Amino acid sequence: MKLNENIKKIEDANAFLRVSSVIADYKKNHPNHQVLSLGIGDVSRPIVKPIIEAMHKAVDDLSSMDTFKGYGGSYGYDFLKEKIKEFDYHDLNINQDEIYVSVGTKTDSTNILELFDINSKIAITSIMYPIYHNGAVCLNRNVTCLEGKEENNFIPEIPKEHFDLIYICSPCNPTGICYTYTDLKKWVNYALENKAVILYDNVYSSFITSYDAPKSIYEIENARKVAIEFRSFSKNAGFTGVRCSYYVIPEEIEKGINNLWKKRTINRFNGADYIAQKGAEAVYLESSQKLIKENIAYYHENARILRKSFEKLGFKVYGGVDSPFMWVRIKDNLTSWEWFNLLLNELEIIVVPGIIFGNSGDSYFRVSALGNRDDIKLIIERLNRYYEKESI
Amino acid sequence: MKLNENIKKIEDANAFLRVSSVIADYKKNHPNHQVLSLGIGDVSRPIVKPIIEAMHKAVDDLSSMDTFKGYGGSYGYDFLKEKIKEFDYHDLNINQDEIYVSVGTKTDSTNILELFDINSKIAITSIMYPIYHNGAVCLNRNVTCLEGKEENNFIPEIPKEHFDLIYICSPCNPTGICYTYTDLKKWVNYALENKAVILYDNVYSSFITSYDAPKSIYEIENARKVAIEFRSFSKNAGFTGVRCSYYVIPEEIEKGINNLWKKRTINRFNGADYIAQKGAEAVYLESSQKLIKENIAYYHENARILRKSFEKLGFKVYGGVDSPFMWVRIKDNLTSWEWFNLLLNELEIIVVPGIIFGNSGDSYFRVSALGNRDDIKLIIERLNRYYEKESI
Repeated sequence: MKLNENIKKIEDANAFLRVSSVIADYKKNHPNHQVLSLGIGDVSRPIVKPIIEAMHKAVDDLSSMDTFKGYGGSYGYDFLKEKIKEFDYHDLNINQDEIYVSVGTKTDSTNILELFDINSKIAITSIMYPIYHNGAVCLNRNVTCLEGKEENNFIPEIPKEHFDLIYICSPCNPTGICYTYTDLKKWVNYALENKAVILYDNVYSSFITSYDAPKSIYEIENARKVAIEFRSFSKNAGFTGVRCSYYVIPEEIEKGINNLWKKRTINRFNGADYIAQKGAEAVYLESSQKLIKENIAYYHENARILRKSFEKLGFKVYGGVDSPFMWVRIKDNLTSWEWFNLLLNELEIIVVPGIIFGNSGDSYFRVSALGNRDDIKLIIERLNRYYEKESI
Repeated sequence: MKLNENIKKIEDANAFLRVSSVIADYKKNHPNHQVLSLGIGDVSRPIVKPIIEAMHKAVDDLSSMDTFKGYGGSYGYDFLKEKIKEFDYHDLNINQDEIYVSVGTKTDSTNILELFDINSKIAITSIMYPIYHNGAVCLNRNVTCLEGKEENNFIPEIPKEHFDLIYICSPCNPTGICYTYTDLKKWVNYALENKAVILYDNVYSSFITSYDAPKSIYEIENARKVAIEFRSFSKNAGFTGVRCSYYVIPEEIEKGINNLWKKRTINRFNGADYIAQKGAEAVYLESSQKLIKENIAYYHENARILRKSFEKLGFKVYGGVDSPFMWVRIKDNLTSWEWFNLLLNELEIIVVPGIIFGNSGDSYFRVSALGNRDDIKLIIERLNRYYEKESI
């Protein structure tokens, strides 16, 4: 028996754990201190009432013989897929058979590699959340990272060479940058010319506000021929603990592609939780949408305050407009670990060091607006005080 | 871009879908007929009250800022792992770090292949549920099926050649046969000698009643050095719609094996649903256990009635003692599809044709005791009437 040596290769990329452990140590050694976080990738607002009510109803369904629900099928309930089609893909010509309900985009976005030949050439448009890279490496795939420059919003140039699969995360974690129609058209054209497939991670779509940024890749002409889109209820509806996501495989990519994927999936997955799917269905209620929009507006306002404050202090800030994340350039020539440690030890503020997202991220740190407003105000006060003192 | 051609190879194994479609057609053409099923692989009893209450409480937790739960970690909540350790592995020396909470054994039992080298030699002890085979093939693995003979309860002989990984399903779906201490010891010894790992699918453990059958593979001496065990809340607690499973990777298999798997899993999976995990925690309440045992007893009684009835009609029946499934030999030299069609068309009874579980299953059909008692009584009446008429 031999273990999968590829997993060992990704050791260093698991720096999220290192961050957590440094923070845990600090807190242990400073038990009564108020350590505040801008590192949080999770939502903090609770799930809104109409969804909670729908989940209570679903729990009750499971308690009696007449309404009990067992296996719900591997691809998701029609009641949910119909809502996704009607609301998220209205006018975009996506049918139910192309929609798959699942338990999280972290899982879906790497699982999808099983649809393609194991020797597929995979490009990752960095700076990016490391899971695509790490997942692909664990699955014995060859991965190339395409670096983007700061002056191009970290969006890489269209490559000269051929790739079969291209990961795009937009709005991007960690940069907070959202691809515009113009950006995406270039990539769709590349994919059309190269008979490539774009794996489009769009879980932050509910944060998009810019007029020139599409809410779905399928708004781009011919994207149905080349793109698989991933979305989730985690960030709009607060489902990070509930677990419900979905993705779309358009039949135009290749005839029969959905039959193939259905065959794979019925052998690998018994469907998402019934309670979660009933909750997700209720996301589309008018009453839920109103409250969800208030939550998103709350996070947007957090982001606006943070962005303005960092800029005032002389930082160069990216993102935070179509995303809860900002990507901030470190001043004073520190590495991202040095800056992380300085903030933690001097100000008791947590951020995410940029190197976690690849070596070229080492001059940046990620700031999240998903926390609590009061905490964010305290954080800004601490930062302001620190820089005032510095400037004396 | 090339698709994964391996998925095409498993086309014929997807006969479950064919069965469903034949049944759907029949029902469509006979709209007012009462078609009764012994084919059901799902549970039919609702979830018991103390678990329902725990899930309501969990839903409420998600509705307010103070109790909200987001990401729960990739390996499962400690509150659940502690119960699993304490109740399911009491005295078996399993620690929390070796337990992984997940969303279903169908997914876990194939995902685990990622822990091992892609060229691992995999043996499947057939007759067996086809997902292990199909999952491994989709993942570009080489798979060998070891055939078992009827006179050995379909348990194969210990192979002469070397394998790295061996799938064992016990109590087995479809045969309903549970490996005894003696059977399992042989396989554990084989694995020790071959430095192999046994992938032990034990999701029906709550149905085990025989004194000579272990409830966990870790009851066998040294199994901690060679076995990964999979279990689920689906069949004991009725969680087929809720989705919560777990598996154990003992550190004795190889030093650092859990670090490796944790690294892989944090990149691939954001954890099982919080509501499901709170429900699973409540499975271990004394009040739940009492009601769960009543449900299992109900299914056992169904199995007893079915077994007796088929035997009276001259069928050779396997299983149904430590499992809700029975594996019944077809009389009259019919293939399993012929017998399936005869039962459907003449008696409007559904069974699962044995060929779905491999070619050597073609002389058998699977009978499930997971249905409703009244339906089962009607089915037996129909069978009895049919064979009375036949014998005239």
